[in-house]
Amino acid sequence: MTTLSQVGEFGLIDQIKKGVSSSRSIVCGVGDDTAVVKSPSGLQLLTTDMLVEDVHFTCKMSPLAIGHKALACSISDVAAMGGQPQYALISLGAPANFSKQFILTMYRGLQRTAKKFGVHVVGGDTVKSNKLTINVALTGEVASKNLVTRKGARPGDQIFVTGPLGKSFTSGWHLKFIPRVKEAHYLVKYFKPTAMMDISDGLAADLGHVLKASGVGAVIEEEKVPRRQKATLQQALHDGEDFELLFTLSSQQAQKLTKQKLPFKFFFIGGIVKEPGLLHVINKKGKARNISPKGFEHFKP
Amino acid sequence: MTTLSQVGEFGLIDQIKKGVSSSRSIVCGVGDDTAVVKSPSGLQLLTTDMLVEDVHFTCKMSPLAIGHKALACSISDVAAMGGQPQYALISLGAPANFSKQFILTMYRGLQRTAKKFGVHVVGGDTVKSNKLTINVALTGEVASKNLVTRKGARPGDQIFVTGPLGKSFTSGWHLKFIPRVKEAHYLVKYFKPTAMMDISDGLAADLGHVLKASGVGAVIEEEKVPRRQKATLQQALHDGEDFELLFTLSSQQAQKLTKQKLPFKFFFIGGIVKEPGLLHVINKKGKARNISPKGFEHFKP
Repeated sequence: MTTLSQVGEFGLIDQIKKGVSSSRSIVCGVGDDTAVVKSPSGLQLLTTDMLVEDVHFTCKMSPLAIGHKALACSISDVAAMGGQPQYALISLGAPANFSKQFILTMYRGLQRTAKKFGVHVVGGDTVKSNKLTINVALTGEVASKNLVTRKGARPGDQIFVTGPLGKSFTSGWHLKFIPRVKEAHYLVKYFKPTAMMDISDGLAADLGHVLKASGVGAVIEEEKVPRRQKATLQQALHDGEDFELLFTLSSQQAQKLTKQKLPFKFFFIGGIVKEPGLLHVINKKGKARNISPKGFEHFKP
Repeated sequence: MTTLSQVGEFGLIDQIKKGVSSSRSIVCGVGDDTAVVKSPSGLQLLTTDMLVEDVHFTCKMSPLAIGHKALACSISDVAAMGGQPQYALISLGAPANFSKQFILTMYRGLQRTAKKFGVHVVGGDTVKSNKLTINVALTGEVASKNLVTRKGARPGDQIFVTGPLGKSFTSGWHLKFIPRVKEAHYLVKYFKPTAMMDISDGLAADLGHVLKASGVGAVIEEEKVPRRQKATLQQALHDGEDFELLFTLSSQQAQKLTKQKLPFKFFFIGGIVKEPGLLHVINKKGKARNISPKGFEHFKP
């Protein structure tokens, strides 16, 4: 028997993808931050995230924060496509002997974040399970001209992130991060990111996804990678759940970005090169080394 | 500490509902088979269902059938609103040592059902969990004139179901049921159901939901309730997961229905009365007794 741990999360997704149908109404299926389907008014975004107790959070954490995180993960996905989140469906699995107050406080945290980002919670499901499990399904919308996927990075493009990386778990950032919706809207309005995604599995892993989707490589400048307080370079490269945006701009747009006074912080971290799959980090002496696009992967030991 | 088992699934939902936002774009929020939101082309339906190992299925059951059930539950919800299912997002939680083959076969079952009902699986999430957990989020569409909710049942209406009830679990029906999409489309096209929902918690419980939403009561004719082979009246009234449609028609439309040669079977089971919340069963001697709108409820012992 082959187990999920042998094939890994992304191995499993690759095999699942094979059975997925295509249709002219589907602009983007499995394999981006959200699915993208045609709607009469533009494009609809669809995304879902499952959070499981003792994997994504523990019940010793604040229920308000857990509720926030459950929704904010999906909002971050919609932001990464350049979109505006709209409607959410919340499925809750919980043990029968679980505290009602904990659940209601968690929903309050979720609703507070919903309100902040213009999301309406319109439905859900509640079932019995042995571990607290929250699934959020979220819709969003984006004008066709504003859609950004993982596919458009081109050699010569510059790579940016929206904030410091690493130590998201130990610092508590993973429970209180702010989905970068405003930053995404600013970017698609005033610049034209060629590719964008949110960093949930770690910078190296997620940049790896952009490189694979775009058929290009990247060189990261080690000392340019913004790190959260006390985070090492390793942690900034490989820790998960930063929920910052990773995006690429043509050198022309990048020049415009670096010259302007901006309402947000954007950190240049490196450039796109033509060699497919190449992922190098160079230190300040200019010495390059290969890094693996490894990050957090479910099922892997 | 108040536990979920003390408040019950519906007690919890009632409390969650209080925090839910409203908006002119939301036609139906929490409290029907699906949410209904306005879209430029009519109405969009949004629903989500979480299935948990050892609650909704066991891993001794056929993975093909589990995959079918996971999607078919949500398709049934869309049918109950008179709608056409469109896009699905699948979240999967599974232990790391779980069989890859089981998961892939389950997806095959799900994809087969998707194809049969014109559903496109466009995305999902895969995470580690200690019990197999599948969440399906499904979108659908319906023309405004075809939307049927739980709210419209009126005194004098007649009550129908689309098939035999009871013993869904022991007969294996819960794994192979056919969502009544065709029946629903036929009904909204040629008749005007005043209310409709699918029977997932049991006839009495779900009829109770229609009565509450419509502010009316009902009298069921005991011997008219169609039962699955070997099912008792009790089982037909209170077992869950039949996934047949329950609908009401004005007496005029009901007359039209009973006079016509129909492509589907519809079973008359009783009538709507004006007393709010009244739920009576009468036997063939005409003797009435109260029944409780109790059915399957998560968290309850």
